[in-house]
Formats: sequence, C-alpha cells, structure tokens
Amino acid sequence: MTTPAILLRDLDAQGILRLTLNDVARRNALSEAMLAALHGAFEDAGSDPAVRVIVLAAHGPAFCAGHDLKEMTAGRAGTDGGKAYFAHVMSVCAGVMQGIVNCRKPVIAEVSGVATAAGCQLVASCDLAIAADTATFSTPGVHIGLFCATPMVALSRNVADKHAMEMLLTGDMTSAARAAEIGLVNRVVAHEALTDATMAMARKIASKSSMTLATGKRAYYAQREMTLPEAYEYASSVMVDNMLAQDAREGIGAFIEKRAPEWQDA
Amino acid sequence: MTTPAILLRDLDAQGILRLTLNDVARRNALSEAMLAALHGAFEDAGSDPAVRVIVLAAHGPAFCAGHDLKEMTAGRAGTDGGKAYFAHVMSVCAGVMQGIVNCRKPVIAEVSGVATAAGCQLVASCDLAIAADTATFSTPGVHIGLFCATPMVALSRNVADKHAMEMLLTGDMTSAARAAEIGLVNRVVAHEALTDATMAMARKIASKSSMTLATGKRAYYAQREMTLPEAYEYASSVMVDNMLAQDAREGIGAFIEKRAPEWQDA
Amino acid sequence: MTTPAILLRDLDAQGILRLTLNDVARRNALSEAMLAALHGAFEDAGSDPAVRVIVLAAHGPAFCAGHDLKEMTAGRAGTDGGKAYFAHVMSVCAGVMQGIVNCRKPVIAEVSGVATAAGCQLVASCDLAIAADTATFSTPGVHIGLFCATPMVALSRNVADKHAMEMLLTGDMTSAARAAEIGLVNRVVAHEALTDATMAMARKIASKSSMTLATGKRAYYAQREMTLPEAYEYASSVMVDNMLAQDAREGIGAFIEKRAPEWQDA
Repeated sequence: MTTPAILLRDLDAQGILRLTLNDVARRNALSEAMLAALHGAFEDAGSDPAVRVIVLAAHGPAFCAGHDLKEMTAGRAGTDGGKAYFAHVMSVCAGVMQGIVNCRKPVIAEVSGVATAAGCQLVASCDLAIAADTATFSTPGVHIGLFCATPMVALSRNVADKHAMEMLLTGDMTSAARAAEIGLVNRVVAHEALTDATMAMARKIASKSSMTLATGKRAYYAQREMTLPEAYEYASSVMVDNMLAQDAREGIGAFIEKRAPEWQDA
Repeated sequence: MTTPAILLRDLDAQGILRLTLNDVARRNALSEAMLAALHGAFEDAGSDPAVRVIVLAAHGPAFCAGHDLKEMTAGRAGTDGGKAYFAHVMSVCAGVMQGIVNCRKPVIAEVSGVATAAGCQLVASCDLAIAADTATFSTPGVHIGLFCATPMVALSRNVADKHAMEMLLTGDMTSAARAAEIGLVNRVVAHEALTDATMAMARKIASKSSMTLATGKRAYYAQREMTLPEAYEYASSVMVDNMLAQDAREGIGAFIEKRAPEWQDA
Repeated sequence: MTTPAILLRDLDAQGILRLTLNDVARRNALSEAMLAALHGAFEDAGSDPAVRVIVLAAHGPAFCAGHDLKEMTAGRAGTDGGKAYFAHVMSVCAGVMQGIVNCRKPVIAEVSGVATAAGCQLVASCDLAIAADTATFSTPGVHIGLFCATPMVALSRNVADKHAMEMLLTGDMTSAARAAEIGLVNRVVAHEALTDATMAMARKIASKSSMTLATGKRAYYAQREMTLPEAYEYASSVMVDNMLAQDAREGIGAFIEKRAPEWQDA
C-alpha cells in the first residue's frame, strides 16, 4: 500500500485502519491532493476485507482547516472566474463526505485540534467522533463572505437547528465540551487520552462481524430518510436477511452456548 | 377484561391503563405470545373510551429483553431456513411498535430495568418515558451478529445520529442518566419513586380531553414527516377542526370563566 | 417608517432592527392586529438593505401569550360557527411564522418572559434565541381542549420528540434552563443581561456580508428537507455561486491580506 505523505495509512492486526491527515504545514486543508487521497483511502478501505474499522486522525494542532483557500483563489484565474473549477472541487469534496457515509466500514473521527469549515464537516460525516479537550469546532465561512453551505449539510444532520445556526451565522468557535453537549461528537477526553479512547472504541467495534456492521451502517442512513412505515418495512427485510446470514447463526448459537463467536464476516 | 398472565392490564377510575409486562422468567421477551398480547392490548385501549392514558410498565429486573432468541432459533427449522417465520415475526413486531405510535391514547413507558434491543425500541416508540436510575438501555444485536435494524428505526427518531450509532455499533449499555441526556427518556427518578412519577404524569394527561389528546398525537407524528409548508397547512386545518369541537368550546369557555372544564371527549 | 404602538420598530446605525412586541395589556397576544404588524415588519425588513439582523423582543412580563382567545371566541359568531374565521387566522399566523423562516435576514428571539402556545412557536421559528432566566415556555392548549397543533410544527423542528411530546401532552411549563438543554433556545442569561447578550450576538452577525447571510439562511432551511445526495448537490451549487459573488472575493482577499473586509452585500 503506497502511503502518500499527506495522508498516512496504518492498518493493525485487529483490522483497525488509522488514516492520519499529515499535511501539518497547511493545517491539513482539504487541498485537491488531500481530497484525492481521502477518496482513495475510503474507497480502498471499504473493499478491503482486512479493514474492520477506520479511525480518521490528524497530526498537528489543526485536525483539518477546511478547503485550501489558496488553491481556491488560484482557481479564479479561469476565463469563467473559477466557476468550473469551484464546481469540480465542491463535487469532489461532497463525494469524499458521502464516501464516508457510504463506506461499508464504521468510521471514527479522532479530533485532537481545530476542525474548521469542511474540517468540521469531516467530523460530522463520520459515524462516531471522540474529541480531545483541546479540540474546537467552527463553520467560520461567514467571516470571509463564503457561507459554509456544504459543511452545514453534515452539521445540520448532527445537531439541533438553533445550535447549527449559531455556528453558521456567527462563525464562533465551539468548544469540545459544547460539541459533546449538542451531539456533534460522542464524548470528550483529555488530550493525552485521546488515541487510547478512540482505539478502545475501534477495538470494540472491530471485534464484531464485519458483515453485520456493514449491513447495519448502510441500513441506518437509508432508513433515516424514509417515513416510519417505509423505514419499518425496509428495516424488517434487512433484519430477515441478517438472520439468514452465517454470522447471525454463529453469533446467536455462540450466545446460547455461552462461548465466543467466530465470525466469517458473511 | 381477560388478563393474560404475561401482560397484566389494570384500568383505574381515572382512565389510566397500566399494561405490565409480566413474563419475568423470560425477561419479558417479545415472544410471539407477548407480541400478540401487546398488539391486542393497544388495539383494545385505543378504542376503549374508558382508557385515557396508557402506562407501559414491567415486572422483574428486565423491562424487556427484546426478541425471544430461542423462538427465533427454533424458527430456523423451516425448509426455508426460517425466512418466512422471521419475516412474520418482524412484521408483527413492527406492527406492535407502530400500533403504539398510531394508538389514539398517549403512552408512557415506565422503565424500571434493562431495556434491550426491541425492548429499547419499545421505550423509543412510546410518546413519553420515565426511567428509574436502575434502568439501562442497549441495542446489543451487534454482539451476536444481528444488527438491531428495526430497533434503530425508533431509536434514530429519538436521539442524534452519533448517539444512536454509538449504541448500535458498540452494543454498549447506556445508563438512565445518559438516556435522559440524549433524549431517549424524558427524565430519571429514583427507583422507588418511579411508579409515583409516571402515575403523576399519567394523571395530569388523563385530566385533559381525550379528543384533544387523540387529535394532537395523530397530528404530531403526521406533520413530523412533512415539509414545513405542508406541515403548516395540515396543522392549521387540524387546529380549525379542533376549534369547532365541543371540548375546545368548553375548554376555552371554562378558561375565560375561570372554572374547571367538563370534557365530553368529543 | 410608521411605528404601530403594538409593535415597536427601532433600527440602529449598525443595521440591527429591534422589533418589540408592545401590547402589554394583552400579554402581547397574536391578535389580528399584531399578526398584521409582524407580517408587515418582517416583509419590510427582508427587503430593506439597511436592516442586517432582526431582534424580536417584547415589553412586559409576557414575551407572547399566543393567539388572542377573546378574538377567537368572538369569531364563533359567524353562521359557520367560526370555521372561516379560524381558517383565516391560522393561515395568517402560519404565514407570519414561515415569513420569519423565509426572511432574508437572521432573526434572534430575545425572550424575557412567558412564551406560550403560538408565542412559544414564535421563539421556535426564529433562527436563534436567547432567554432570560425569567423566561418560561409552554404549549398549554391541551388545558383548554385545543391542542397546540401549529405551535408543534415549529417546536418539533427544534427539540427531540419526547421533549416536544411532554410539553404538548402535559401543557407543563418549561424553564429557561431546560429550554436551553433541549435546544429550544441557544442559551440563558440573567434577566438584566438579556438585551446586552442578544445585541452582542446581533452585532456580531451584522458585521457579516448580508448577501452571505441571506444565501446561507435560505440554503439552510432548503437543504434540511432534502435527502443527503440532494442536499449536497444543492449546497454545492450554492457554494459555487457564493464563491463567484463579490463579497466572497473581497472576504477571502481580506483574509489572505490580513485586513478587515469591506462588504458590498452583493
């Protein structure tokens, strides 16, 4: 597996893939190179049976500073004032964010520092998130005349309207503790305990059947957008199929026989 | 009224129906018999003018342990490996859960103990829930290879995505205090104060017009799935009809005349 | 600008429009006159380039007592028992509430006292809300046989189902502190600090580009009702258009050059 310097990939023996944003000089901005690296990494991880859980972490004081404003500004040079370029970048970025949601593997954000704009969106797009007490969150586009419109898609699916609107309209920073209160992250731990906390959560999830996790994650986001009767009809059919899978047979058998299950991930 | 041993029905003079899960040996699992008893009880209560509010309680240390895994496993004996049987059970269970949502009477969960999988879904499906400090909540299907797909339909309509995903992907237990923080229950009280707390809430609601409660509950869940303009058009028409009903005339008159209203529940 | 006595309009040099409900004797009820005044004020403010942010405040111990029950009762005199009149009032009121959501300018509720029924809906309909510790919230229609059906449209888009249902089914009062916990208001401050707190928030928002705020607010509520892929496609196009606007060019340039931006609000 090639490891581009700006995004580190470390897969351990338990199937936990750590993806570490490593473009510290650019505050891990979502440059075109970083977006391409993330897109590839989530696509590869989704189809790699060795990967059971993904942790998205970062080096440096910034978790992720959002779009790369210098690249965006350079993009204005086109004859269309940058329109085609911006549309391209937005489409790629939305693809990365939805790639996390659609990835078969659970994704945990490990947020040590500043998560800004599309960086905040990255956290909101992960299934789970643990923040260090040093982490902060903001959607500050409004300061520079550019409303955080795509970040708010993910943000507004995590937190209540008034909380999202406060972040979006003021651009103010949200502390890690407040982010936990409003539902943007699952919990806050001391900075020095962050990796232990995310890895403990990742190990717990990695011990489950990958088939079951993939089934459940896909079904979760699908049913969220249905009416209640539709959601029940769909989820019931998911549950029937899951019951007929080998890992449910094994898991239920192991539970009744009081032994540890052996997953075939199928 | 016949009282099946596994589900007790007690209706008091104020119109509060206590349904008590009473299959303690099976941890109040949603066996086929229990599902049938619940289905019948909510259907009867919905159309019984003597019932004004329903409290769903339980005997024993478990509020409800979810599906009956022994019955489910026995169902595998069919030539189709259990597919038709599982589909039947899921359909019946989804019917019970939606029967609570669609029931004309407000339903309060009184959660004294462990609420697991479809037992957690039962709590999430009630309009209101009060938990004892001894109560716990989990969707642990992931431990046995069977993702809690139908429980998550109700769970994800109660709590934020990251909170739901943590319960679903880890299978971890959620304390009563945490359940209150994330919105899965309305509040937590000491174990010995639980029945008093739910009965006080039930009595307060039972003192209202049954017509008004039924109108409002139905409208609540209907408008939740509409766009804002649709929801306003629908809710406005509900309000006009409600204004023309006898109980609104009586209630508003009593309010202006500073006397207690006498409901006709019509 | 004419200033009807029941709704005061004060626009300061920074573009902050304070709308103050001033029908203290009627507890700022949403009489026909008040609804008309609010409708006009939000419509005017939306299209007035001098207005950058709106604060909705109130004089007297009640923020707003909801519909005017005496007017509603008088409306029963019609040969149709009031049906056409009620439909008219509900339609006008729903128009005012949606007018706040659709207004191009951010709206902050400054809630000093009691916000009841459609008064609570008014708070829920604003983009942001700060409450004094003396404020209280309720949807008490159920006490008088008239379920708060239209208030619940806004309420249920702010808070979790179980919290909304508790307010609606019991009619109980919610304290300011609890309102902050459940997401109905952004925060609570001491009564004497309320106006300072809302004005500080208003000034912060007023310092942003009006074009950016209008773009973002409209996009926020639009994307909330879309599926995730639809929302991303829509928000991406909003972001591209925003990038091409003068104020984004100016804001990003100012940021890179480390100077204050000068908005053209275009």
